[in-house]
Amino acid sequence: MNPVEVIRKKRDGGVLTRDELEQFVAGYVEGRIPEYQMSAFLMAVYFKGMGPEETSTFADIMLHSGTVVDLSGIPGRKVDKHSTGGVGDKVSLILAPMVAACGVPVPMISGRGLGHTGGTLDKLESIPGFRTSLEIEEYRSVVRDIGLVLIGQTSEIAPADRKMYALRDVTATVESIPLIAGSIMSKKLAEGIDALVLDVKTGNGAFMRSYDESVALARALVAIGKSAGMEVLGFITDMDQPLGTAIGNWLEVAECIDCMRGKNVPDLMEVTYVLGGAMVHLGGKASSIAEGITQCRSAIWSGKAYEKFISVVERQGGDTAVIRDPARYPPARYRTEVRAKTAGYVTGFSTTKIGFLSGSLGAGRIRVEDIVDPRAGIVLSKKIGDRVEKNDLLAILYSDTADTTEHAADGFAWCVSIGPEPVTRRPVIHALVDGDGVREWKTPETY
Amino acid sequence: MNPVEVIRKKRDGGVLTRDELEQFVAGYVEGRIPEYQMSAFLMAVYFKGMGPEETSTFADIMLHSGTVVDLSGIPGRKVDKHSTGGVGDKVSLILAPMVAACGVPVPMISGRGLGHTGGTLDKLESIPGFRTSLEIEEYRSVVRDIGLVLIGQTSEIAPADRKMYALRDVTATVESIPLIAGSIMSKKLAEGIDALVLDVKTGNGAFMRSYDESVALARALVAIGKSAGMEVLGFITDMDQPLGTAIGNWLEVAECIDCMRGKNVPDLMEVTYVLGGAMVHLGGKASSIAEGITQCRSAIWSGKAYEKFISVVERQGGDTAVIRDPARYPPARYRTEVRAKTAGYVTGFSTTKIGFLSGSLGAGRIRVEDIVDPRAGIVLSKKIGDRVEKNDLLAILYSDTADTTEHAADGFAWCVSIGPEPVTRRPVIHALVDGDGVREWKTPETY
Repeated sequence: MNPVEVIRKKRDGGVLTRDELEQFVAGYVEGRIPEYQMSAFLMAVYFKGMGPEETSTFADIMLHSGTVVDLSGIPGRKVDKHSTGGVGDKVSLILAPMVAACGVPVPMISGRGLGHTGGTLDKLESIPGFRTSLEIEEYRSVVRDIGLVLIGQTSEIAPADRKMYALRDVTATVESIPLIAGSIMSKKLAEGIDALVLDVKTGNGAFMRSYDESVALARALVAIGKSAGMEVLGFITDMDQPLGTAIGNWLEVAECIDCMRGKNVPDLMEVTYVLGGAMVHLGGKASSIAEGITQCRSAIWSGKAYEKFISVVERQGGDTAVIRDPARYPPARYRTEVRAKTAGYVTGFSTTKIGFLSGSLGAGRIRVEDIVDPRAGIVLSKKIGDRVEKNDLLAILYSDTADTTEHAADGFAWCVSIGPEPVTRRPVIHALVDGDGVREWKTPETY
Repeated sequence: MNPVEVIRKKRDGGVLTRDELEQFVAGYVEGRIPEYQMSAFLMAVYFKGMGPEETSTFADIMLHSGTVVDLSGIPGRKVDKHSTGGVGDKVSLILAPMVAACGVPVPMISGRGLGHTGGTLDKLESIPGFRTSLEIEEYRSVVRDIGLVLIGQTSEIAPADRKMYALRDVTATVESIPLIAGSIMSKKLAEGIDALVLDVKTGNGAFMRSYDESVALARALVAIGKSAGMEVLGFITDMDQPLGTAIGNWLEVAECIDCMRGKNVPDLMEVTYVLGGAMVHLGGKASSIAEGITQCRSAIWSGKAYEKFISVVERQGGDTAVIRDPARYPPARYRTEVRAKTAGYVTGFSTTKIGFLSGSLGAGRIRVEDIVDPRAGIVLSKKIGDRVEKNDLLAILYSDTADTTEHAADGFAWCVSIGPEPVTRRPVIHALVDGDGVREWKTPETY
């Protein structure tokens, strides 16, 4: 294989063979193919795409660049969820213990936040003592013992993807559906799971802003899963405003604790119940998604999800006292209120900007090596469709530096649109994507 | 300037500002921008192109990455020629002394052959002793003293282009009109010339195979010249068969000696006279291209072009005895005749393949570091349109290894098409491109 010929073939719209992809990717991981050839290849893929089979092969090659965990010794169908990321997306923290409480093992490997989006790992690490870097052996034993485990990417899993992702980030080649799909699925297929539920966000705070792109990504992910023999269901969910009310690591954990104790934050809980219902269904514990949703609902109401959360925190070294009594958590030094300058209705949020604002308060990172402040962030008081009077509280900003908070408060006001007329709320869940295609989703009224 | 933003802007079809291009290119030359970002950028340019002004700016930035030679102390308008390269393209060797003999100084900086194309530098270096790497000071004094100079690229000229060209070669980003045009013009603008004649080849042995692409490249080159205040005329010339009869370094020099002594190799001499006529015209020594052609013709017939060639060989350290008596040159060890298997008319050549075949005999290089054999190559006995009887000689192949020559002889037979009907010969020169656009070219009958 001549690497220049592989690049040229892709550049000219050709479909690469397994052998060509394998040698190119393996050569890159082993350092025989230099970064500059990989980046030219990635840009060619950005423009020319990959066919469905080619994308599956690509994901499979990245998967086999590292360890593929074997969880077959643990009874039951193991199910995980993957979200493409958004602002205030804390679903995993409630979802994993909730689904585990329904009897479906959830081995979950999560990532960190970057840019405007948060990451489950940063949220978990805001819990004092919580260890997210477990070896594969401990990962296996935690899920066996308590039915769920929450860890970060290990270096054994899909090293090709990790090396390639870092390169894509600095060469403007992130936004390519086959590359995104290959990256996501190579990691998920390595977890040792039997089925996967996808949460593909759409809207102005999502990675894929347009609905059509989100659907295209979901379809690519489902197709890769199918070709690897894994059952995958995808939901297109709304990210035109932050999910729930809290943005920022500990603030989001606190919101999740409230929800696990029975508080209803409508959009957040709808997404959590639907994804959870699908997981319970795919895990073989419910005959339909709707029945799964009903089971999830009782796992929350009965307190079983919350107790499961306590046990995973305890097992992974976290401080359960602060979970049981969040008021013990040291607050951020500064707290700034943002109030409405006019009366009306909230018509929209600049969601990505809010994500970056929360980051600037200390909650996020621009570079991979940045350190996050677990206490920083934003708590919204109003969401799209809400009535607002002049001087009503819109949000509270938390940070450790007074200047940043003042500056961010000005910025935040620009991120909220208030108009004179009430607006129709967008659905929280737009569609369901499976092997048969895309169809509209109506969350059952019963939940 | 954030390099990722520059890549993204180009990827999304944006037009880069001078400042963005300058910082990106300068950052690359100075090593602050890594190869992998430049290669992603180059691939984005491959797909999205550059606007005319952007291309001119790009060429200008590469030009100013190195020395711009000042030849203003030498009287007269200095004129050079650039060819996009082909098989058997030995025009420069006759053209430069011929134009210089007409009183127009020709400071010529040439390249080496790569892939299927030859390079003037390799041809010159087949003359024993000929020095092609002169310092800028000597370059200036040779052109001042004898009216022409023939050298290779120096490291002071357009270092950005040299670094970028090496990268394009290994990342499948060579075939992009703005990148090719920027590369060519940055070097030509640095030579200290006042005007330039372009020979953009078209056909199955050319870099740009289609006529439309060749015209697009010529227009881009003319536009860059115009924006830099340099007069540029371009010709689209035929490369659907090798030019003249010899392919291979010394073999081509020998053919040029014959032509300078009065032999008429029709296609080769038509291209040489027309490009020369344009150079003499742009050099201010003829009121039209046609008048320039007439002057060039008498420079050949009078023997002045030949004497000028002898003086440049002598001045640059070459052995003039072997020029005056080419029979002294040591021949290649093996000589293999290729004969026609059927009678008919030559209808076409696989010109690029013939270029590679000649390379495989030792005349060319696949990698920049390969060493060429000056004696290896091919001499054609027939050209398109010629009548052929069975067993007629089609070509003679020269090489130092018997096996290679036998193998190449089989290959060569496949590169010549012989059909039952006579074919119309394609014109040697297809069109003239200048600041006003493209027009058909008819070489004056008079020459």
